[in-house]
Amino acid sequence: MNADVRVCFVGDSFVAGVGDPLLLGWAGRLGQRAIADGVGLTAYNLGVRRQTSADVLNRFVSECEQRLLAGTDARVVLSFGVNDATHENGQPRVDPEGSATNLTKLLGAAAERGWPVLLVGPCPVDDPEHNARTAELDERFAAIGAAADVPYVRVHEALLASALWMREVRAGDGAHPGAAGYDVLAELVLPHWREWLSR
Amino acid sequence: MNADVRVCFVGDSFVAGVGDPLLLGWAGRLGQRAIADGVGLTAYNLGVRRQTSADVLNRFVSECEQRLLAGTDARVVLSFGVNDATHENGQPRVDPEGSATNLTKLLGAAAERGWPVLLVGPCPVDDPEHNARTAELDERFAAIGAAADVPYVRVHEALLASALWMREVRAGDGAHPGAAGYDVLAELVLPHWREWLSR
Repeated sequence: MNADVRVCFVGDSFVAGVGDPLLLGWAGRLGQRAIADGVGLTAYNLGVRRQTSADVLNRFVSECEQRLLAGTDARVVLSFGVNDATHENGQPRVDPEGSATNLTKLLGAAAERGWPVLLVGPCPVDDPEHNARTAELDERFAAIGAAADVPYVRVHEALLASALWMREVRAGDGAHPGAAGYDVLAELVLPHWREWLSR
Repeated sequence: MNADVRVCFVGDSFVAGVGDPLLLGWAGRLGQRAIADGVGLTAYNLGVRRQTSADVLNRFVSECEQRLLAGTDARVVLSFGVNDATHENGQPRVDPEGSATNLTKLLGAAAERGWPVLLVGPCPVDDPEHNARTAELDERFAAIGAAADVPYVRVHEALLASALWMREVRAGDGAHPGAAGYDVLAELVLPHWREWLSR
């Protein structure tokens, strides 16, 4: 059971672990825990800085198909949204309708190929107005996950309430935490990750 | 200087760090060292299991273009060859001429886009005949690197002589080491990596 599990973590700079001097991010930390739990895991980190849901959708199938070979227990973890909610010229880079449509398309593409998905919600940054927009996306994404029967891990509120997360974000580039912040995020996702891998 | 360096590590399962319970591999270890040295590094690990030079060539430009944005110090580390030299039905998966051609095409594609390249040679596995074929590729690749004025880091002989590397490979799946083996490999590459980043 779980002898050859291949997981693509697909998303933005938070998935990539930007700001973490250990270069693990929350995805690497979850991967380490799975290995320690005895899962035969190969983890591919496909987080890319600045990417919105539209950018992720553009490369999702081609990059995952390179890595998720037939005959393996092939899975996907998806996480994005902060860049969608970034304002440029007074407008979000992707409007909430567009973000919702992109998520729905991503879930459809994964389902077509038989890849189970775990969704992880977007994180807060050091900008209350940005966070308010991200929180709205979080609500939408949670509803889309529920409707598709895909587990959705909410982290936004908990991280906003985490003095450690917010302190590291402010001490960093205003968006990304350091190693301790990624520890906090990984711990929030860990029980859901374990449950999902056990299915 | 080196304020926004983005490096794609592109190659096979050794690049991906298969076998390492820390999920860092040699690429992650080099990345950590660069961060500790004060380099503003974003590292993208694009190692994929089972991939030959032909597979890497197929996805090289599309995956790197997603990550190596204009205005950054965008670079590529390439490493492959072990899977090229794997015999299937008595033939290598990619013959040496094909491997050489693929490497030349990869260097051309990187040069066209202004991405400096660091080449890291292929590793030994627990199979002397396979290693003999890989060692021949290593020679060819070194010559191609020299002709293109691209630094090429040879690791094959040193790892073959490393009792630690070979013991971990045998204790593992016959091809990949564990954490300590990747430490050894990272130390071999480290001075070249540092020199290359300082250019």
